[in-house]
Amino acid sequence: MRDVAIIGVGQTKVGEHWDVSLRHLALEALQAGMADAGVARADAIYVGNMLSGELIGQEHLGALIADFAGLRGTEAFKIEAACASGAAALRMGIVAVAGGMANIVVVVGVEKMTDTLGPDTTTALAMAADGDYEAAQGVSFVAINALLMRRYMHEYGYSHQDFAPFAVNAHRNGMNNPFAMFQFPVTAERFARGKMICDPINLLDSSPICDGAAALVLAPADAASAFSAVPIRIAGSAVGTDALAVHDRRDPLVLDGAVLSARRAYEQAHIGPQDVDLFELHDAFSIMAALSLEAAGFADKGQGLRLALDGEIGIEGRVPVTTMGGLKARGHPVGATGVYQVVEVVQQLRGLAGASQVLDARVGMAQNIGGSGATAITHILERME
Amino acid sequence: MRDVAIIGVGQTKVGEHWDVSLRHLALEALQAGMADAGVARADAIYVGNMLSGELIGQEHLGALIADFAGLRGTEAFKIEAACASGAAALRMGIVAVAGGMANIVVVVGVEKMTDTLGPDTTTALAMAADGDYEAAQGVSFVAINALLMRRYMHEYGYSHQDFAPFAVNAHRNGMNNPFAMFQFPVTAERFARGKMICDPINLLDSSPICDGAAALVLAPADAASAFSAVPIRIAGSAVGTDALAVHDRRDPLVLDGAVLSARRAYEQAHIGPQDVDLFELHDAFSIMAALSLEAAGFADKGQGLRLALDGEIGIEGRVPVTTMGGLKARGHPVGATGVYQVVEVVQQLRGLAGASQVLDARVGMAQNIGGSGATAITHILERME
Repeated sequence: MRDVAIIGVGQTKVGEHWDVSLRHLALEALQAGMADAGVARADAIYVGNMLSGELIGQEHLGALIADFAGLRGTEAFKIEAACASGAAALRMGIVAVAGGMANIVVVVGVEKMTDTLGPDTTTALAMAADGDYEAAQGVSFVAINALLMRRYMHEYGYSHQDFAPFAVNAHRNGMNNPFAMFQFPVTAERFARGKMICDPINLLDSSPICDGAAALVLAPADAASAFSAVPIRIAGSAVGTDALAVHDRRDPLVLDGAVLSARRAYEQAHIGPQDVDLFELHDAFSIMAALSLEAAGFADKGQGLRLALDGEIGIEGRVPVTTMGGLKARGHPVGATGVYQVVEVVQQLRGLAGASQVLDARVGMAQNIGGSGATAITHILERME
Repeated sequence: MRDVAIIGVGQTKVGEHWDVSLRHLALEALQAGMADAGVARADAIYVGNMLSGELIGQEHLGALIADFAGLRGTEAFKIEAACASGAAALRMGIVAVAGGMANIVVVVGVEKMTDTLGPDTTTALAMAADGDYEAAQGVSFVAINALLMRRYMHEYGYSHQDFAPFAVNAHRNGMNNPFAMFQFPVTAERFARGKMICDPINLLDSSPICDGAAALVLAPADAASAFSAVPIRIAGSAVGTDALAVHDRRDPLVLDGAVLSARRAYEQAHIGPQDVDLFELHDAFSIMAALSLEAAGFADKGQGLRLALDGEIGIEGRVPVTTMGGLKARGHPVGATGVYQVVEVVQQLRGLAGASQVLDARVGMAQNIGGSGATAITHILERME
């Protein structure tokens, strides 16, 4: 198998794009990525998306986007793994290039959550959870996360206010990202006054409903320097799964799928958490940020939040997270998020992260989580030269 | 890259399974396939499905099915390409095994179309077409096919009754398949009296709405004989795409995506249509059967129907099609269909097709079509010993 590199990235600004359709969002990101890589065609296009059918009445995104981009004929599928759909599409692209079935693959993550036809978005998002044993009982996706957050606070003796650093950090970093949805600061005081969504989760614990698309162009690493001045090698790519329903988990406060996924990725990359310069984690809710830090080996059980409280998650901290705003401030167009995370790691490793730049970043990690932890996909990226 | 073989197959009976959930259907097929192959684990599970979100309010099928099958932790995604989702999942499995990223992959196609929560099934199926430029204008999926059928009749001077052989053949063969939904004959006279659905398409031109699941187990060909007495090699696997909207096509009566897909698959297999012993085509509507025969090179333009009228599509004909009932009689649980087609080709090549057995079948082809032709996926299979 061959090493795979990222030779181009593209993204749209995340936001409520009431006047832009899904296909236009995808096109903008895809064209930006292909222009960045300097390629005019691809062997395959894999599209990460979760809710196009439910929300805008459109399936079959692979062929739709291939055709709309002028790439009619090209192999193209949609890949779905709930909120981890973006990284799942990337994973399929890596498998295709690493194995030699494709030389150039374009991965597009896209989600259109405003101007919808379908059910309300809360109902649609609950399809990431167990339909028969969670959603059908009336529990929403935010409610599942609220149960986890309450339990975490109870087990380890934290207050709600202790979660503030995640939102504060994400918004501080998002202000430096022109593609982020929210470009304003959040203080700990403002976090304390956040509107309650689902006790104990308030508005500032939560990532927003929004639209966006991001794209990555992959090529064999040994050919990458022909396309990109700073190609980024994919050193690890691994998936772990777990039960959809929280009540079926071994321990609700341990993301076993994420533990497995991170461990496999570290093994592939021959590194450990201490070697990671930045970590784009899946802060759909602040509780997920804490649990992800623990699952990925940056903190012991119950200590993920401590890392944040100790100021170690900032750009100059021990484990910089959500360096371009994360799901909280960049936004969380669900099926696109996993691709945005990797685009941002590439920006960091290229040294193009502006005021959010992590100094001398050479190794970055992204972890995309589907549902409340049933799918976890970890990618470790390394600057090649 | 390595050759890939199919070492196990499984399927549920297709039908209206009002009392069986999606996860139970998937489990039954997956367990049958894994038992057939004699494997207890997999490196990855790829699930072909189109409409689980819209119809039963459940996304995230990869992790759901992995966990329900006792394979928690395993890499698992849903792959979607409208009605070609099943073959798309198979394609991803082949890419993973051929490239060396996985040794054992389980591919599951599943669709649950009865006992639904969501929009009516006709609305959901239209999501295979162009949402903005076809479905939003009020055209249903059957209406798109009706336009194509009317145009075909007009261009080439056929009557509606000329399409009867497709239904007659499919039902005759389905009677020999215990997994088929319909196990009764259809005569040309009965076809003539079929209830009108969308002029000129009548009930007996149309595949049924139904539930079902099928599974395939893949392994490297050089290890296949350890698992299966008659392993089946995948000699060709190729995808072609086209515009979703019929009005955007080069010629509405030529399935360019299917032409491309078949040509690529023939090249990989180093064969031509004359070498194919049976062809599981995508007879979602009888017009699609005619167009598929032409796209795959078995007949010239406008002559696909002639092949059927000349009696060449039966088990002993020149191009046996829908040998186990096809979409028409076996049934068309949309995201599962592409997997059923390949399971049936395997049965033929193993010599286990019962009264529908094609004599001395050594090379079989399956072509799964998404939408009215925007995705076409062709697989060519060869008996190994």
